[in-house]
Amino acid sequence: MLVMKSYRKELWFNTNTRRAFVNITHQVESCIHESGIKEGMILINAMHITASVFINDDESGLHHDFEVWLEKIAPEKPYSQYHHNGGEDNADAHLKRQVMGREAVVAITDGKLDLGPWEQIFYGEFDGKRNKRVLVKIIGE
Amino acid sequence: MLVMKSYRKELWFNTNTRRAFVNITHQVESCIHESGIKEGMILINAMHITASVFINDDESGLHHDFEVWLEKIAPEKPYSQYHHNGGEDNADAHLKRQVMGREAVVAITDGKLDLGPWEQIFYGEFDGKRNKRVLVKIIGE
Amino acid sequence: MLVMKSYRKELWFNTNTRRAFVNITHQVESCIHESGIKEGMILINAMHITASVFINDDESGLHHDFEVWLEKIAPEKPYSQYHHNGGEDNADAHLKRQVMGREAVVAITDGKLDLGPWEQIFYGEFDGKRNKRVLVKIIGE
Repeated sequence: MLVMKSYRKELWFNTNTRRAFVNITHQVESCIHESGIKEGMILINAMHITASVFINDDESGLHHDFEVWLEKIAPEKPYSQYHHNGGEDNADAHLKRQVMGREAVVAITDGKLDLGPWEQIFYGEFDGKRNKRVLVKIIGE
Repeated sequence: MLVMKSYRKELWFNTNTRRAFVNITHQVESCIHESGIKEGMILINAMHITASVFINDDESGLHHDFEVWLEKIAPEKPYSQYHHNGGEDNADAHLKRQVMGREAVVAITDGKLDLGPWEQIFYGEFDGKRNKRVLVKIIGE
Repeated sequence: MLVMKSYRKELWFNTNTRRAFVNITHQVESCIHESGIKEGMILINAMHITASVFINDDESGLHHDFEVWLEKIAPEKPYSQYHHNGGEDNADAHLKRQVMGREAVVAITDGKLDLGPWEQIFYGEFDGKRNKRVLVKIIGE
């Protein structure tokens, strides 16, 4: 018999480049440890609509491939191709974020992230160089 | 110490056009209010496989950009390009929905949707002009 | 008043082909039955980063369309187009998995998957011919 607990934390990021992939797995693990929750689910989501949280491989060649591929299917320039870019220049970032996703939901088992052997959690930034947040919410016991 | 509660509701839509983006944030907030749940998670998912629930910006220029972009990467016509279109004409809608996603999971904190400043929840219709549903499920306390 | 329970199971797959879509809806239903959980949420996620869990239609024409479409937007060959393919040949599988998604979260109501009429749960394999896993985690009551 388990009784529900909850936990909330914001993680802050400010990347040097417009686009970046940041491995946040250890930060998320720290949240679970801090929460004391042993069984449940954790939601990790970008709080901004030009960024992603996603799970994939921590391999620099692959991250290069993501960058090239996202630029092919949702190119940054020319800015004039997008209606959203009247007063903005980040329409492509909204599109890229849809491909990569807003959030990851991960199981917590025995007080740990229940991930496969190569699964790592990333913050995907598509319109950076400013302060942006990721929300971590845990429910469980 | 929290004890778990749950809540379920269906939201109905019937758009005038084949494709549409409908801001459902207020309807989802009403569900949370009705549920009385203060801490937990809310799942909002399309119950149809040619529609999406996703989170992005409520800006008409961007919605135009989504429409143009989705038509570029998964065009509606010619219908004959898709095997699914033997007796149907909506294969493109199944593809578009994969790009935009089926569901959003959002944290509930202090009885409210725990969203970033520009996050709004949308129903994305890709094969409309008929009654279709979104499921809202909340678990928490 | 509900008190939280949790359940965990791994499902194993080994497809004959590099790419495949496997309907796992019945296996997921069996997990819910086994768990005894009547109200809650179920997370079903690929534990590998070259595979997906997604919800769409169980229609062979559509699955053919997915295969053709994913090859168009993230082609397998030439392998040399991807930096990840130094010692690997599966960069395309990492990209395809981002389009199709890692996980599905589904409501459980009255002890059943709370799905729309045509929603079916699939394991999407993009780099198969070996043992790979899907995680099923349920929390609820």
